[in-house]
Amino acid sequence: MPARPSASTVLDHFARTTEQIVGRESFVERLESGRPLRIKYGVDCTAPDLHLGHAVNLWLMRYLQDHGHRVVFLIGDLTTRIGDPTDRSETRPVLSAEQIDRNATAYLDQVTTVLRTDDDLLEIRRNSEWLEPLGVGGLLDVLALVTHGRLIARDMFAERIKAGADIAGHELIYPVLQGYDSFAMDSDLTIVGTDQLYNEMMGRHLQQRLGAEPQVVITTKITPGLDGGPKQSKSLGNYVGLVDSPQDKFGKLMRLLDPLIETYATVYSDLPEDRITDLARRAELGGRDARDAKLDVAEAVVARYHGAETAARERAAFLSLFSARELPDELPTLTVDHDQLTVIELLRLARPDASRSELLRLIVQGGVSLDGTKLTDPDAVTVINSGAVIKLGKRDRRRLQR
Amino acid sequence: MPARPSASTVLDHFARTTEQIVGRESFVERLESGRPLRIKYGVDCTAPDLHLGHAVNLWLMRYLQDHGHRVVFLIGDLTTRIGDPTDRSETRPVLSAEQIDRNATAYLDQVTTVLRTDDDLLEIRRNSEWLEPLGVGGLLDVLALVTHGRLIARDMFAERIKAGADIAGHELIYPVLQGYDSFAMDSDLTIVGTDQLYNEMMGRHLQQRLGAEPQVVITTKITPGLDGGPKQSKSLGNYVGLVDSPQDKFGKLMRLLDPLIETYATVYSDLPEDRITDLARRAELGGRDARDAKLDVAEAVVARYHGAETAARERAAFLSLFSARELPDELPTLTVDHDQLTVIELLRLARPDASRSELLRLIVQGGVSLDGTKLTDPDAVTVINSGAVIKLGKRDRRRLQR
Repeated sequence: MPARPSASTVLDHFARTTEQIVGRESFVERLESGRPLRIKYGVDCTAPDLHLGHAVNLWLMRYLQDHGHRVVFLIGDLTTRIGDPTDRSETRPVLSAEQIDRNATAYLDQVTTVLRTDDDLLEIRRNSEWLEPLGVGGLLDVLALVTHGRLIARDMFAERIKAGADIAGHELIYPVLQGYDSFAMDSDLTIVGTDQLYNEMMGRHLQQRLGAEPQVVITTKITPGLDGGPKQSKSLGNYVGLVDSPQDKFGKLMRLLDPLIETYATVYSDLPEDRITDLARRAELGGRDARDAKLDVAEAVVARYHGAETAARERAAFLSLFSARELPDELPTLTVDHDQLTVIELLRLARPDASRSELLRLIVQGGVSLDGTKLTDPDAVTVINSGAVIKLGKRDRRRLQR
Repeated sequence: MPARPSASTVLDHFARTTEQIVGRESFVERLESGRPLRIKYGVDCTAPDLHLGHAVNLWLMRYLQDHGHRVVFLIGDLTTRIGDPTDRSETRPVLSAEQIDRNATAYLDQVTTVLRTDDDLLEIRRNSEWLEPLGVGGLLDVLALVTHGRLIARDMFAERIKAGADIAGHELIYPVLQGYDSFAMDSDLTIVGTDQLYNEMMGRHLQQRLGAEPQVVITTKITPGLDGGPKQSKSLGNYVGLVDSPQDKFGKLMRLLDPLIETYATVYSDLPEDRITDLARRAELGGRDARDAKLDVAEAVVARYHGAETAARERAAFLSLFSARELPDELPTLTVDHDQLTVIELLRLARPDASRSELLRLIVQGGVSLDGTKLTDPDAVTVINSGAVIKLGKRDRRRLQR
């Protein structure tokens, strides 16, 4: 195990991507104690689809692992029966035990693209281990420690109540169970998205009421999608998945909007600050400069996951495709007046006379691609970059123009 | 087992003391099915102190027992850890398992002053039997069937929230557990005070959601205390306890306010209607007539619990005391301008020059009695009846006058 960095070194490192540290002094004390910390990484085992945004937390945990601290990967098998009501405006159907197991395995596969798996650095637990023995009686004792006021203090609950939607009883106590996990597993620290702050503060409350030291809660910044949208999501097609191939990661990152180059470099790469300053400057220049800056960011991000060699190879492959595309300057252009469009909308612009079913057939047959990436979902939103080449069938290629 | 009465006979019998029957048609159907019904009698095992008011429900159950139906005496051992929040404006401390067992035994002793204990007519269960195996996971499944809106729909919760007092998490789910009991124990019917209507309606809701026939919920009327106060309670000293001796029951009933004679006769005795009409008429006449009517009510109520012979003996004993008291008409009078007073206030009127500690000493030494009943609690409220004789120490006797 390498020598531990000082607490201030850790805080400096964390500052780049964290938003808030609840219990900062306690964090410093614990780091300085020399004791390996237990880092709670709780997951709600719905079908996982982790992207760069999730990885921000994982990289901070990886940093602590590299210095001897232990991540406790907590499979919320019992709480997944409820489903975290965070960010959902409606009550969700309950998952089966089999689905939960399958999802937990998939989750671990994705998480370990970043986290170390050494025995002493990664512990795997399930919250049924303590919630089952707790029983109804024990749960009542825990519930006695929280009030209705605290339970409904959540913004999203208030919004749901206001909107006339109701909260199911099991959702209402979800944060209590998540909070009790922190106590039961001796969590020193948890690193979560801002949307999990409420639930993890409940952990602090319960730890305190149960006589334990409250965990430190660190929240990380939320970064927009490739298209600038506030959320990265599968349905928007605007994110880079952790299990995407190096080629796909590179290709998707090259669709990043120019104004996000600096942010992505800061949050998703480990490039040093002076390089980032330089990238930001080049991004502002636009055109070829911005494109080259984006190449650098894409290479740095891919390198983080797949190593420098693979990243360099993807950069070369992308450039050769791009160069090939630049040759026939005589390609017809397709003028698009939008920042983004769904695939089917884009096709309608290109082929105004074709019927919807003809366009769908073209997509289904795999005949549509954008800069070499096949477009298979007619409703996926795609970012319109000037200069990109759309291919429709064997012969029809157009250069997009804004 | 005697032949079962028709459903309409049962309904007629119930009409005298019931307020509402939720599921009346289903009640009729079940009565007519010929099947022995399972009657839920759930108790929250806090220190029991059952009085005539509680016995109204017990007598209805006893009536059904007499016709072959089975009372399930349900000890809420697990839910008592919470404490039913009904009628409490503040959260209550949690009881220990030992206290609960002790209280459950005491409860059963009091209840069986009315209920039959035959094997097939009284079943004793504890809700830990099904709530413990249910576990946290099972409880979550149950909680999924209720909404936050339903949970806080209780009047008393709304009032507490409005008053700025909060509800503890365990109190919030109390009605869900009480409701689940109805499902788990196959309740056909429960007979409760109006204050339990909300909780038992939750039982109907959960039974329905879980695929069972919802129980019938019968609520009974609430009767004022001896002094006309809306609640019968130990601290007000205005009630007749089920385990009071025949003498105490008789003596307390003789302190009943005249305007309540008809109500008490209706709700607490099994006197036929024509007798009650007659009692009401005599109560209105006041004076000796009202006193004699009260003697009849006291005798009928005591007879219900201790048999006609004992009741007649208590009546005679009371009358001989009363006659003895009437002889020395030359007793000095004590004029009291109140319907009721605490014992210490009454003593202050009688002995304006004595210090508070002198008066307390007199009470503690057992030197104070009213119509032969010792007054031992200085703060107990006592009803002032004209003609009653208060005794202070060995020699000082006064006749009260309004």
